[in-house]
Amino acid sequence: MPVVTFLPAGRSAAVASGTSLLDAAGAAGITLAAPCGGEGVCGECRTRIASGAVERVARGGLSPDEIAQGWVLACSSRVTGDVTVHVPEDVSGGAAQFVTAGVERVPAAVAEPLAVKRVLRVPAPVLGHSLSDFERLERALRDAGGPEHVTAGLDVLRELAGALRASDGQVTVAIIPADAAGPAEIVGIEPGDMASAQVGLAIDVGTTTCAVSLVDLARRHVLGTAADYNGQLARGADVISRINYARTPERMAELRRLVLETANKLIAELCARHAIGAERIDNAVVAGNTTMMHLLLGLNPDFIRLEPYTPTVNRVPRLRGHEVGLAMNPAGCVLFAPGVGSYVGGDITAGLLTTALAHPGHEVRLFLDIGTNGEVVVGNGEWLMACAASAGPAFEGSGVRCGLRASPGAIERVRIDAATGEVAVNVIGGGRPRGICGSGMIDLLAELWGAGLLDPSGKLDPSRGGGRVRPAGSSSRNLAYTVVPAENSETGAAITLDERDIQNLLRTKAAVYSACAIMLKSVGLDFNALAEVYVAGGFGRFLDLEKSIRIGMLPDLPLDRFTYLGNSALSGAQAMLCQAAARQDVVRLAGRVTYLELNVDPAYMNEYTAALFLPHTDLGRFPTVRAARATEPGR
Amino acid sequence: MPVVTFLPAGRSAAVASGTSLLDAAGAAGITLAAPCGGEGVCGECRTRIASGAVERVARGGLSPDEIAQGWVLACSSRVTGDVTVHVPEDVSGGAAQFVTAGVERVPAAVAEPLAVKRVLRVPAPVLGHSLSDFERLERALRDAGGPEHVTAGLDVLRELAGALRASDGQVTVAIIPADAAGPAEIVGIEPGDMASAQVGLAIDVGTTTCAVSLVDLARRHVLGTAADYNGQLARGADVISRINYARTPERMAELRRLVLETANKLIAELCARHAIGAERIDNAVVAGNTTMMHLLLGLNPDFIRLEPYTPTVNRVPRLRGHEVGLAMNPAGCVLFAPGVGSYVGGDITAGLLTTALAHPGHEVRLFLDIGTNGEVVVGNGEWLMACAASAGPAFEGSGVRCGLRASPGAIERVRIDAATGEVAVNVIGGGRPRGICGSGMIDLLAELWGAGLLDPSGKLDPSRGGGRVRPAGSSSRNLAYTVVPAENSETGAAITLDERDIQNLLRTKAAVYSACAIMLKSVGLDFNALAEVYVAGGFGRFLDLEKSIRIGMLPDLPLDRFTYLGNSALSGAQAMLCQAAARQDVVRLAGRVTYLELNVDPAYMNEYTAALFLPHTDLGRFPTVRAARATEPGR
Repeated sequence: MPVVTFLPAGRSAAVASGTSLLDAAGAAGITLAAPCGGEGVCGECRTRIASGAVERVARGGLSPDEIAQGWVLACSSRVTGDVTVHVPEDVSGGAAQFVTAGVERVPAAVAEPLAVKRVLRVPAPVLGHSLSDFERLERALRDAGGPEHVTAGLDVLRELAGALRASDGQVTVAIIPADAAGPAEIVGIEPGDMASAQVGLAIDVGTTTCAVSLVDLARRHVLGTAADYNGQLARGADVISRINYARTPERMAELRRLVLETANKLIAELCARHAIGAERIDNAVVAGNTTMMHLLLGLNPDFIRLEPYTPTVNRVPRLRGHEVGLAMNPAGCVLFAPGVGSYVGGDITAGLLTTALAHPGHEVRLFLDIGTNGEVVVGNGEWLMACAASAGPAFEGSGVRCGLRASPGAIERVRIDAATGEVAVNVIGGGRPRGICGSGMIDLLAELWGAGLLDPSGKLDPSRGGGRVRPAGSSSRNLAYTVVPAENSETGAAITLDERDIQNLLRTKAAVYSACAIMLKSVGLDFNALAEVYVAGGFGRFLDLEKSIRIGMLPDLPLDRFTYLGNSALSGAQAMLCQAAARQDVVRLAGRVTYLELNVDPAYMNEYTAALFLPHTDLGRFPTVRAARATEPGR
Repeated sequence: MPVVTFLPAGRSAAVASGTSLLDAAGAAGITLAAPCGGEGVCGECRTRIASGAVERVARGGLSPDEIAQGWVLACSSRVTGDVTVHVPEDVSGGAAQFVTAGVERVPAAVAEPLAVKRVLRVPAPVLGHSLSDFERLERALRDAGGPEHVTAGLDVLRELAGALRASDGQVTVAIIPADAAGPAEIVGIEPGDMASAQVGLAIDVGTTTCAVSLVDLARRHVLGTAADYNGQLARGADVISRINYARTPERMAELRRLVLETANKLIAELCARHAIGAERIDNAVVAGNTTMMHLLLGLNPDFIRLEPYTPTVNRVPRLRGHEVGLAMNPAGCVLFAPGVGSYVGGDITAGLLTTALAHPGHEVRLFLDIGTNGEVVVGNGEWLMACAASAGPAFEGSGVRCGLRASPGAIERVRIDAATGEVAVNVIGGGRPRGICGSGMIDLLAELWGAGLLDPSGKLDPSRGGGRVRPAGSSSRNLAYTVVPAENSETGAAITLDERDIQNLLRTKAAVYSACAIMLKSVGLDFNALAEVYVAGGFGRFLDLEKSIRIGMLPDLPLDRFTYLGNSALSGAQAMLCQAAARQDVVRLAGRVTYLELNVDPAYMNEYTAALFLPHTDLGRFPTVRAARATEPGR
């Protein structure tokens, strides 16, 4: 029978030929959303073929570009042979679709969280044997094949007498095994058999957006993901302004409180949705950039900003829930993805876990994480180089007036009919739109340019667009394009994009492209040398790679060399949560990356300036874009 | 030159023959109090010869009994050959007199606290090397011969950036070395060279009294000791009533707060007196009985009281200052002397460290700790047995109306002239008396009985005492003896002892003696088999052993078999604070002790009842007392 493997979960199922991909996913324990009942209508079950092929029964709402990129509707595709399918991340806040990526990308029968739950039966005390409750617990654990000695904190000791006597000596303990970070330790205890109810947290703390996944560790399955803007957003749009704000202890405390409020609100949402007591969560993994980690932990971030750009810590030691301030078991363990330096943090090392960059071999791959900072890592099994550029939060729905993070109500796709000027949009979750998320912004830029409404420098043409291009305010110096008129939006205000917004978007795409170009130049390679390009970021569920190339954000390479990872920091944190190998690999990865300081490279500013145009001042770098332009209707 | 060794400090000095013991103490780095200037007048410098001899120049206020027991005045004794001297503990709250006892009883050049301070110079960061502050600190530590890897908690990481930049990269770190309890960890950091300023805390949490020593770890010297009543005292006089009180979580929290207030007040006093910032204290060792440890840590004590008498924990894991709630470095480590069972706790195992009970060999020794509970341990290098009896706090200055813990203003000695009825008292710290401490109570009982004012059942004889025996209140059923008339006391009220007080004292001495007797009987030995008897407790600076025998509290053995240890739990905690070997030994000791439950032994009540008389119903057990009585003037 053909074997179908789902990435990034790495889970497989052997199914009969002719089975739909949707059913194959179910057989592999992966639930794909199919609100239309698998009729090929809603497009929610779209997945992308990574290797192998399927028989397409219907193309649903897929565009020819998407079909070229390997997108299929799972409900409308039949398995004909071995095939590997990439399932996009669900950012809609609804039911989770997949368990997490792992560096191994192989199925694992059970999760290996750091703190594991075990059920023990502890004999009752006997007169004349002065064994304490803790000594009897330790013996029961040893008799069950556990460690010779364990320790425990006060929180556990305080529960111990009650727990041992509540369910006839049967207790479930959460234990961190002995390792280099310490001896075996019991971090939680509760009466009865609660081993099947173990969940963990993967937390991505971004400058603009925070995301939390609640993971069922017994079943190795993401129960749900929730995301929201980082509560610090009003205190600075990027890491440098955040650091500048944090110049007094009181403000550092305020920023810490704000991000904890965001994370804990998301945890509470997920716990309520899945009826789980947060105090029972014994494991959490946090990935975030170096500044975000400093602010989350109350560490002075000032020296990150000042030459020679020195963080207090790259590799945060294992901490406790109560130390970090997370709403979970206070004695539970919190692991941090290790950072490389002040501007390449744990979000990047975690993200690298979901790529093949460090896999053995000489093939060079590039990993690009487009957040408020844009980080680029390039390398192979022998070397890894990283750099960072200030990209701005434009693609995360911040810094652009009608921007919205990828969440229900966000426009995630835009089509402009060049002939009629008609605009068609897809809205996450259906319904009326409230704003535009990253993938929608890229679509919009590409479509406006393709339809001839935008010149290469980002100026709108008021003579076109069927009246949709108008002055943004009282001055005619700033024009705006109306994507959705007021009467069709959720908010009652028109959804527009003005020339200032466009400049922000161009600056972001220019920062990303030029960082990639400089990085490759510094290692003596060009884009064609890349076997694979991974793109991560909070754009939304689908990033239109072809359009990303068309606006000059991504290099002009064959589409099959690209993989869109979505929130790779969150996926990497999920892998660390579930896999011991991922926790080891991420430390090795962090140790292997060499950081390249772009600020000291004079060529960077030239590259950046050239990349501020659509797609670039040097059209020779974008041959397919040049060729396509020649035949476009809008020309 | 003769070598003079001072116990329990274990410090020695070689001095010329003819040197006074007072000067020899100074040469050994031990300061003995000599308020009279070494004129042989005040008696404050009294010490006891343990082995060897000295030439006595004057006998000061020493009694013939004391001289027989080996007491000398250090100022008035000349060294003539090698001699070992026992220095009694200073409980007056004044300047410390000695560094602590150790299981080794040998001099150690340096203290070995758990967390040690080290001075490092950490190189400044360099552009292009993305080493974090913590990584550079780790390297500097490794280059200085420290551990390969260290970890640190958030408190330290928060100080790190500032500390490294305040004194040109020179910092003093406090490090717990890697051991079975965890990897190497930095628990404190401060700029500059502060290695010489390391102090630690030894804490004895007793049911009635708490005592804290501040120890200079660089010089291995007790800077000072402060003691006070346990703030929980008003919530129950003994452990059982304390447990009964603690039946709700709110009350458990209240008891925890009360004892922490006491301990932290004592720490604050000591720190203020020695101009030390409490947050710089990285090490503390706590010894206390099992119930006190449960209440200090907020652990449910209820099952200690209920058969089969099971504590939550005997061996409390290493904790942090902030977890326990002590006023010290929040990340500093707090060690606990391990307990044996519900009624033989860490105060006893710590106390055993100051004895030879577990030393190799077959000689049987007995250790007796008379606190609110009386614990008895008997054994040798091959076996150790322990039992506990409820003694009551009478000798700690509680449960007796004019009782006062050994502190300034307490009467520590009493002499009654049987012929004239005149009463002479010694008051701790001089001045007018406020009450009577344990050693004074024993003196008083023995003297009253010796002067014929008291019958063997504890009844006062109103026909004697020169008018000092009068009804205590309106009823003549309870007589009282006036020790100090109102006009001579500090408080303006007479200091008296009534028949109810006497019954309390008799119950305490009976519990102690009968516990020893039953314990020996249970191992098939009698008192004469004992090579050595150690007596510990909060009686005061000097316990008159001869009088303790005379009232039947201690067995009738030659005086040279007894050693009075004072607060051995505190001395043991000091040893654990300063010596790695003591920390290992105390764990081994705790594991070797077998607990004997007295409550289930029907013979105990008979023994107890017989011991309620002065000295005992069976005078044959006290031959020297019987012989002395025959010739006493009061007969």
